[in-house]
Amino acid sequence: MSRTILIIGIGAGNPEHITVQAINALNRADVLLVPTKGEEKAFLADMRRDICERYLTNPDTRIYNYAVPTRRNDGSYENGVHDWHHAIAKIYEDVILETSGDNDTIGLLVWGDPMLYDSTLRIVEHVRANGRIAFDLEVIPGITSIQALCASRRIALNRIGLPVEITTGRRLSEGWPEGTDDVVVMLDGVEAFRSVQDPDAEIHWGAYLGTELEITVSGRLGEVAEEISEIRKRARQENGWIMDTYLIRRTRKVGTEDGT
Amino acid sequence: MSRTILIIGIGAGNPEHITVQAINALNRADVLLVPTKGEEKAFLADMRRDICERYLTNPDTRIYNYAVPTRRNDGSYENGVHDWHHAIAKIYEDVILETSGDNDTIGLLVWGDPMLYDSTLRIVEHVRANGRIAFDLEVIPGITSIQALCASRRIALNRIGLPVEITTGRRLSEGWPEGTDDVVVMLDGVEAFRSVQDPDAEIHWGAYLGTELEITVSGRLGEVAEEISEIRKRARQENGWIMDTYLIRRTRKVGTEDGT
Ligand SMILES: C[S@@+](CC[C@H](N)C(=O)[O-])C[C@H]1O[C@@H](n2cnc3c(N)ncnc32)[C@H](O)[C@@H]1O
Ligand SMILES: C[S@@+](CC[C@H](N)C(=O)[O-])C[C@H]1O[C@@H](n2cnc3c(N)ncnc32)[C@H](O)[C@@H]1O
Repeated sequence: MSRTILIIGIGAGNPEHITVQAINALNRADVLLVPTKGEEKAFLADMRRDICERYLTNPDTRIYNYAVPTRRNDGSYENGVHDWHHAIAKIYEDVILETSGDNDTIGLLVWGDPMLYDSTLRIVEHVRANGRIAFDLEVIPGITSIQALCASRRIALNRIGLPVEITTGRRLSEGWPEGTDDVVVMLDGVEAFRSVQDPDAEIHWGAYLGTELEITVSGRLGEVAEEISEIRKRARQENGWIMDTYLIRRTRKVGTEDGT
Repeated sequence: MSRTILIIGIGAGNPEHITVQAINALNRADVLLVPTKGEEKAFLADMRRDICERYLTNPDTRIYNYAVPTRRNDGSYENGVHDWHHAIAKIYEDVILETSGDNDTIGLLVWGDPMLYDSTLRIVEHVRANGRIAFDLEVIPGITSIQALCASRRIALNRIGLPVEITTGRRLSEGWPEGTDDVVVMLDGVEAFRSVQDPDAEIHWGAYLGTELEITVSGRLGEVAEEISEIRKRARQENGWIMDTYLIRRTRKVGTEDGT
C-alpha cells in the first residue's frame, strides 16, 4: 500500500502548452495541491486555477490550496534555500497526510518543467527521506519558458552543432561563461545582459511568455539593451512582478561548426 | 494573401507528450507534411502516423508524405549541411506549391522541439529567402528528449542555481566543456561519455525515450560506462537504429551554489 505522487509540469504561462500526459495526470489525481500564497503571485495562482478549470474533468478530484512559506533571507544563501526546502517538505507532509488516504494519488502542479530551476523534486525527496509517507513518484514534463521564448521569437536555441549554456542572471553578471557563445539566462534579478561587453551580440528577450502580458524584444545587444531595461522596469512597476528569460548569442569566439 | 506555415513540435517519442497547442495546430492545417524516407527510420515515421491518427479530427486536413534526401558526405561537414538544407528547402517549395493554395495552412511535424538541434526553422527561412512563396510562420514547442530523460529518471537538469551545457557527442569527445560541471549530450555517434575522465561523475542515460523501446541507466560513470556501451550496441543491432541522450554531472569543480 502506498501513495502515488505526480509532479506535473503545466507549462510556463500558455495554458495550451499543457500536454496530454499532464491532463491525464490531473485527472488521475485524487488530490491536487495548488500553492497560492507566500511567494506566489496572484497571476500565477490564477493561471493554475485556469488550467484546472479547463482540463480537469474528473469530478472526484479534490483541489487543495496551501500556502508556501517565504524564503529566509538571513544567513548564507545556501542555508536559506536548504531550510526553506525542509520547511516546505514539512508542509507537504502535513497536507498530504491531512488530505489523502494511503492509496491515493496526489498531484503537484509545477510551473514550466519540473527539471528546470525548480525545487519540487528535491522537496519531495526530503519527504521521502523523512520516512513518514511511502509513495511512488512520477514526473510529467512541461513546456519550459525557454521553449516559449524560442517559439515566440521563431528561433533555434543552438547554432548548427554548437553548444548552449543555461545559467542564472547572477552567474552571467560575474562574467561570460567559458566554452560557449550562446547563453540562456533565467532567474535574472540584476539585468545581467547589461554587463555583456559585446554590442554586436544578438539578444532575444521575453517576459510573461505565453501569457496575455507577453512582451518580447530581439536585436543587437548594443541597440536594444537600454530599451529592454526600460520596458522591464515599466512592466514590473505596472504589473507588480516580472518573469523574464533571454538568449544571448555572442559573436562567435569558441570552436567551429559541426552537427545538424 | 499568404500561406501560413506551422512548425509543430510533437515530442520526442511519447505520443502523450504532445501539447494542446500542437493538437490544435494539426487540426488547423489544410496540409500536413510528413517526412517518411531518406534519413527517416520506419519507427519514427510510424510515430508520426500514430500522432495523426490519435489527434487529427479535422476531416479536411490532407496528409502528404514526402521523401527527405540523405545528407551528402563528401566535402566539408559544414558545406554538406548547407547543401542539404538547400536541397530540402527546394523540396519544401515544390511540395508546398503542389499541395496547397495561396491561403492554405501547412503544418510541418518536427521531432521533439523545433528549437533543439533541428534544421526545420533554418530550412523554412531558406524557402522564405528564395522568394517564391509568401507565408506567415508560427512555431509550436514540443517536449524534447532532454525533458523525456529527466522525467523518466525523475531528476532535475540543473543543480541548485548552477548552469548546464547542452552539447553534442562530437564536442564532448574533444574534452569536457569549460565553465560547467553539468552537461547534456545529444547527437552522440561516438560514445563520448567513455572519454570523460571522472569515474565519480554521475550519468543518466536514456535511449528511445518515451517509446515502448525506452531503456535508461543511471549510476557512477566508472561503474556503468561499460554497461551503457554494451546495452547501446546490442540495442542498436536489434533495432537497426538508436537515439540516445544523457546527462553527466561531474564532481563539482566550477564556482559555488546560488539560485533556487
Ligand atoms: C524558478 S524558475 C522556474 C522555471 C520553470 N520551471 C520553467 O520550466 O520555465 C523561474 C524563472 O523562469 C523564467 N520564467 C518562468 N516563466 C516565465 C515566463 N512565462 N516568461 C518569462 N520567463 C519565465 C524566469 O527566468 C524566472 O526567473
Ligand atoms: C536531430 S536531434 C533532434 C532533437 C529533438 N528536436 C528534441 O527536441 O529532442 C536528434 C538527437 O536527439 C536525441 N533524441 C531525440 N529523440 C530521442 C529519444 N526518443 N530518446 C533519446 N534521445 C533522443 C538524440 O540525442 C538524437 O541524436
